[in-house]
Amino acid sequence: MSDVRIAGVGLTRFGEFPDRTSRDLFAEASGAAIEDAGIDRSDVEALFYGNFMGALAEHQGHQGPLMAEAAGVSAPATRFESACCSSGVAVREAVKRVRNGETDVLLVGGAERMTNMGTAGATEALAIAADDLWEVRAGMNFPGAYALMARAYFEEYGGSQEDLAHVAVKNHFNALENEMAQYQKEITVDDVLEAPTVSDPIGLYDSCPISDGAAAVVLVSDEYAREQGIDAPVAVTGTGQGGDRMALHDRDHLARSPAADFAAEEAYDDAGVGPDDVEVAEVHDCFTVAEVLAIESLGLFEVGEGIDAARRGETSHDGAVPVNLSGGLKAKGHPVGATGASQIAELTSLLRGDHVNSEHVEDATCGVAHNAGGTVASCVVHVLEVAQ
Amino acid sequence: MSDVRIAGVGLTRFGEFPDRTSRDLFAEASGAAIEDAGIDRSDVEALFYGNFMGALAEHQGHQGPLMAEAAGVSAPATRFESACCSSGVAVREAVKRVRNGETDVLLVGGAERMTNMGTAGATEALAIAADDLWEVRAGMNFPGAYALMARAYFEEYGGSQEDLAHVAVKNHFNALENEMAQYQKEITVDDVLEAPTVSDPIGLYDSCPISDGAAAVVLVSDEYAREQGIDAPVAVTGTGQGGDRMALHDRDHLARSPAADFAAEEAYDDAGVGPDDVEVAEVHDCFTVAEVLAIESLGLFEVGEGIDAARRGETSHDGAVPVNLSGGLKAKGHPVGATGASQIAELTSLLRGDHVNSEHVEDATCGVAHNAGGTVASCVVHVLEVAQ
Repeated sequence: MSDVRIAGVGLTRFGEFPDRTSRDLFAEASGAAIEDAGIDRSDVEALFYGNFMGALAEHQGHQGPLMAEAAGVSAPATRFESACCSSGVAVREAVKRVRNGETDVLLVGGAERMTNMGTAGATEALAIAADDLWEVRAGMNFPGAYALMARAYFEEYGGSQEDLAHVAVKNHFNALENEMAQYQKEITVDDVLEAPTVSDPIGLYDSCPISDGAAAVVLVSDEYAREQGIDAPVAVTGTGQGGDRMALHDRDHLARSPAADFAAEEAYDDAGVGPDDVEVAEVHDCFTVAEVLAIESLGLFEVGEGIDAARRGETSHDGAVPVNLSGGLKAKGHPVGATGASQIAELTSLLRGDHVNSEHVEDATCGVAHNAGGTVASCVVHVLEVAQ
Repeated sequence: MSDVRIAGVGLTRFGEFPDRTSRDLFAEASGAAIEDAGIDRSDVEALFYGNFMGALAEHQGHQGPLMAEAAGVSAPATRFESACCSSGVAVREAVKRVRNGETDVLLVGGAERMTNMGTAGATEALAIAADDLWEVRAGMNFPGAYALMARAYFEEYGGSQEDLAHVAVKNHFNALENEMAQYQKEITVDDVLEAPTVSDPIGLYDSCPISDGAAAVVLVSDEYAREQGIDAPVAVTGTGQGGDRMALHDRDHLARSPAADFAAEEAYDDAGVGPDDVEVAEVHDCFTVAEVLAIESLGLFEVGEGIDAARRGETSHDGAVPVNLSGGLKAKGHPVGATGASQIAELTSLLRGDHVNSEHVEDATCGVAHNAGGTVASCVVHVLEVAQ
């Protein structure tokens, strides 16, 4: 079994670029990743690409070959779709491929164009990540779904909107110097609490923005890295994936995410590490409550105890385990198909020491990325480690 | 490296079922495959699922977890999309997974609901498999694209509409007894030539229908098959995938399919066989000319010599290498996301000897499946062999 090295990473800035196509965005991100890796495009053996709503946003399916073209590679290309963890699952299958020794160089990433649809259009498009027959037609959208999850959490374990507000404040703070983030804007707990309500108890500042953007990662086998003299200190050492019933009403518990629990356990076992080894995490904070659920599923906090982690500063840049040093989905942005690969890119930079926030995780050797789809009906977790 | 066995296959009938959802269709097909395999649902470790246009047809993305639910499995699920070879690429990655020894039991398949959109709606939805910016907005649709390819073929290598008509006649004949096929209707060369023109030189009977349907396959490692005492005589011994520029105008040659050439060569090399070993083939005849291009890419006929293979009877049920004994996309139907897995299912039955047309390939031990996306910007080829 090959060790899977991250040879290069590339990102566009996330933000509102309604005139940029997904192919334009992915050309930039993939070009940056390939340049960062210092590999020849002709060495790329496959492209695994995540995209969620291209059929609705751009009347464009079959984006695999289109994105290979945009990336300037002639390798066969496959699109993966798993709602908001579309490029997370692409990374997972890419890791499996490199591991099995049949593929040495794999370009993996994702892109999403959303703001061209407007907020109402994007919200309607995002709803295809829920059960259309039993949820969407009943009027459910994602702020509503996560509001139900937050209420269930409060009911079961306690906590308040103010606790959640600290998550948003922290993630905005983390993004202040991240030039790839959609927002460089410091906010306060009062700002969050005074913002318009989207779906009670979720307010505007509890919600990630609608974003355009792309992300790419070059994965290589350690043999290839050695032969080519590529400096690739970070390896993907663990991968896990879990699934759950699609509709919230079919779940046993609205404030737990068994798909994430399963993915985390599988990824830790795969890497031979545990939650205590994790020094930095990027998690799927599409809404502030989602970060709370994520850090509990990852075992960084006991069930019911993640709610005030941000308030207590434990997940801050100077806390025990900084969470979402990139700014997270909340402040960095959430171009759906790009998010999973973007987490891997940010975490790699953080661990390599070339991220603007690397100073907060000096000497860290183990990080984890948590990428969820829908109301966590899908979840992918990856463990990244600085190789010895 | 594990040998990859096909433990079970399942299909819905393909046809016009506008009131059946994709989950309903996939529940039937996956249930049949699991029953055919004789495995416990709880042994399934992952679902790889192909779907193309669910976002447009059913306002439903994120179909992975939804289809796991429909199949009654709790395993993590991933959707693959590569236009008309969506479940073909799902099969490919499933094969890679079982091979690397990390996964013993994988459910793979696909479904598509199309006829609820009507012919115009489905045609517009199908167009997302082409380049929206540079082809679709200029008025191109798939009958038009394949008409260009047919014209280029005639120009370069000769041949006629009558040659192509024999492909349709053959495939309709093959489907006569296949209860899973959309059409059980014998047609004549005159029927094809006298049918309304869709896009000259392609007529109505040169075109596959718009279909609803689902297909599923259970792949297992040979260790698992042995341990469980499962009779799984057919193995996937080769897999290949190729890609090409998305838009026809970027190709060097309209009457060649380098993506299919590449996929075929990789699959043959992988299996350690060659075209001469192939005794039966299922190929992607979305239009009659597509079958001609496919059998040339597979090396069953020299370039420029596939055009009259059907006319000469060489690909008929009693020819040297029967092609599309299932009826092909033309007569069996083409519910896009199901087609790749359906080819594997049909070929498995043909080689196992339990297909209605198995009598035409008695003692055959090697078959090949060719599944293409768009105008063959994507292609996946698999080699199936009866294990020794």
